Amino acid sequence: MCSEVERSQFLSVWALTGCWTEAGVKTRISVKGKVGLDSSLVVVRLTVLDSRVAHQHKQQTAAGGQSSAVRLLLICNGLIIPPGHKKSTACLYRKSGRRLSSFNRAFSEAAMAELDEVNEFFASAPPLRDHEAISAVVDDFLRPRLVLAITGGAEKPTPKMRIVCVTSGGTEVPLERQCVRFIDNFSSGHRGAASTEYFLRAGYGVIFLNRRNSTQPFCRALPEDPVLTCFEPVDDLGIQPRPRYASAVVNAVRKHYTAVQHGNLLTLPYTTLFEYLQILRIVASKLKKLERHAMFYMAAAVSDFYVPWNKMEEHKIQSGVGPLAMELAQVPKMLPILRKFWAPNAFCVSFKLETDVEILLKKAHAALIKNDMHAVVANELATRKQKVVIVTRAGETHVERTDVHQDVEAPLVSTLIDQQTSYIESSSSVSIDPSEITSLSRSLSRDASLKPLGGRQSSFKW
Amino acid sequence: MCSEVERSQFLSVWALTGCWTEAGVKTRISVKGKVGLDSSLVVVRLTVLDSRVAHQHKQQTAAGGQSSAVRLLLICNGLIIPPGHKKSTACLYRKSGRRLSSFNRAFSEAAMAELDEVNEFFASAPPLRDHEAISAVVDDFLRPRLVLAITGGAEKPTPKMRIVCVTSGGTEVPLERQCVRFIDNFSSGHRGAASTEYFLRAGYGVIFLNRRNSTQPFCRALPEDPVLTCFEPVDDLGIQPRPRYASAVVNAVRKHYTAVQHGNLLTLPYTTLFEYLQILRIVASKLKKLERHAMFYMAAAVSDFYVPWNKMEEHKIQSGVGPLAMELAQVPKMLPILRKFWAPNAFCVSFKLETDVEILLKKAHAALIKNDMHAVVANELATRKQKVVIVTRAGETHVERTDVHQDVEAPLVSTLIDQQTSYIESSSSVSIDPSEITSLSRSLSRDASLKPLGGRQSSFKW
Repeated sequence: MCSEVERSQFLSVWALTGCWTEAGVKTRISVKGKVGLDSSLVVVRLTVLDSRVAHQHKQQTAAGGQSSAVRLLLICNGLIIPPGHKKSTACLYRKSGRRLSSFNRAFSEAAMAELDEVNEFFASAPPLRDHEAISAVVDDFLRPRLVLAITGGAEKPTPKMRIVCVTSGGTEVPLERQCVRFIDNFSSGHRGAASTEYFLRAGYGVIFLNRRNSTQPFCRALPEDPVLTCFEPVDDLGIQPRPRYASAVVNAVRKHYTAVQHGNLLTLPYTTLFEYLQILRIVASKLKKLERHAMFYMAAAVSDFYVPWNKMEEHKIQSGVGPLAMELAQVPKMLPILRKFWAPNAFCVSFKLETDVEILLKKAHAALIKNDMHAVVANELATRKQKVVIVTRAGETHVERTDVHQDVEAPLVSTLIDQQTSYIESSSSVSIDPSEITSLSRSLSRDASLKPLGGRQSSFKW
Repeated sequence: MCSEVERSQFLSVWALTGCWTEAGVKTRISVKGKVGLDSSLVVVRLTVLDSRVAHQHKQQTAAGGQSSAVRLLLICNGLIIPPGHKKSTACLYRKSGRRLSSFNRAFSEAAMAELDEVNEFFASAPPLRDHEAISAVVDDFLRPRLVLAITGGAEKPTPKMRIVCVTSGGTEVPLERQCVRFIDNFSSGHRGAASTEYFLRAGYGVIFLNRRNSTQPFCRALPEDPVLTCFEPVDDLGIQPRPRYASAVVNAVRKHYTAVQHGNLLTLPYTTLFEYLQILRIVASKLKKLERHAMFYMAAAVSDFYVPWNKMEEHKIQSGVGPLAMELAQVPKMLPILRKFWAPNAFCVSFKLETDVEILLKKAHAALIKNDMHAVVANELATRKQKVVIVTRAGETHVERTDVHQDVEAPLVSTLIDQQTSYIESSSSVSIDPSEITSLSRSLSRDASLKPLGGRQSSFKW
């Protein structure tokens, strides 16, 4: 139990990783882990970016401003601050001889290296503009289901306690800072929109994290340019739906409106890869409170490659000088981080899309293990609307629509919901502890007094 | 006069460049030019792709099936077919000693090299699916204004005779044949949509060649996801505009509907660079009949780089093997081809967008000369909605909106319309000759009996 509490506190600090100003001092907070032969050492590292004030900051950090359990694990500029240490010079602290099994599992050396890479990605990304607003709407959306999950914990779990985060659409990767050109991933958002409809029908709350202007739930039957195509003038001043589209457009508006009004659908749009991953991290950090009642359904086509912000051209790349050679870096893999750190108990479903059916299932099985997913949905570009294969540790489930009028998402979502129900029911050791959630919320809101930096490159809002 | 007629006939054959089957023989038609010290030689070259039937085809080509003026210029497999030649063996024909000044101007060696490069691009591009339908709607749209331009030729030219092709939005460049990833150019399509509204207001017919899902004319005031945002349920079964958006959405539907119904607005959507350029070529080949009454207003953000179809990966590029290195080829410059071959007398306006103001005007002046434009609109990414500079051979005209509620497109379009009027009025040597148009149409419809190949790579529909 002790390890679980410490882990939560560790995570609550970890959630603050990034760059901060506190009392006028610029600080980067990151995490670092090391596992020795006979000891576990997990630390939060503060790097004071402005070296002229490092000494002062060390004093301040050591003297207070963090909770004691967190201070226990602090490193300031390479030196670990021991618990309750009040002096102005820091000394090395090592939790030798104390083995914390949950730390060993979650924060192996390799995992911490992955995490460092991810933190580097976020630290160098352009800041998310609407961070505060997004956090607030996710909190509001989550609250009723969280209350239900806590108060109804003894009853049989129902979809009414659950929230799925459906990601949908492609991600844009800028090639220039003042972006004229970008790389994009093909995705109409059809899969995500259709799946959202079936999750809503089953009683789930859906956070629809979708590419701006991709297909919206209940709008799949609408044509291109729907306002201009579906409506026509009537009388001297008005408009009305054209008969041909009347049913589709009325359905779309009414069903979407109802889902939003009843608090069952929250739409969060993104454009770039940077926005997508930052919003995903916010959502995950909130949904983790729902433990196994949360699901991530990662249908977005997320770029594997990007140009790091600090290597990006400031201005438009000039043509007229022959062919253009580009080298793109790999985007750090976020799924293992989501599983290990962001929302460790959520039910996670990822997608594997390939155009070459020969390698599809092999890659889906590899992704299942590598990313520690609960299920990987394998789909081939050409047949993705007819059939998919759900790959789990128990084997492969072939899912196919029964006729051309059915969506393959109907049986797909239904099967995954059953799998999540089994996953929730199989849980014996982990259940939601209301007091833990309360203390975590309190600790997070206290930490919120830290103010993020304004600079574009060196910080992001979190 | 003779040279003008020959040139038209040459162009009518040139418009057929591509791959064809005629009487079961696969043939590639391309053009080739050479200017000697004392002679002009302009030829149409037929390459018989299936060498086993080359001899038979030479006979057939020489024996007929082309108009005599065209046959005059034919080369079959490197040998020029002389006029009226009826024998089965071809011999070299050279128009020595006859200098055709219009040929010298339009079809210099460098221009023909450019044209070869462009033809290569089109020959290797994936075929345009809706070619026939697009040709037909452009013909229908053009007809009333062409009649007006011909019958009202003696009167003062008015915008009612004119058509502007406004290109708008970015172009998608696939990185894989079964496209998962692509490179895109940032453009909301706002400039093109706004300009279209002002051209319509001035009486122009507008062919709006726009990126699918980019901003549409009269829709600039609509929010994202306009159907879901602008409408709400009413009564038990209906929907109505929300009060906040009622005026914007009613305006958009009614004004757009009116422009289309009155035959003043034709919308042609594209997605990829390949589609964009193929549709542009169709439109240009039709609009050239309007001579100086046609305008091209090239506001689309067209990619400078692409991956040639024959060098493209068949399947999705695999991640997980380190960084991705890509080499992109330069897209052949189409503006000089538009000016020289596609619609030589149309008034042409291109745009130069840069993020670096230092090089903007220099590049705009260079583009004016290099692409033989009538005007280049220079705009900087950050201030493009406030001000632009129109660069012409007469100098620079600074255009700025007078207040924040005005569109900079209002004075921009108005200035360009005045410049086109001067351009039309300054024309003394060139005017539309109805008989020439009729004969050209007849010749084109006769040539239409040629059937395009079905193959994806080796041909495109034209």
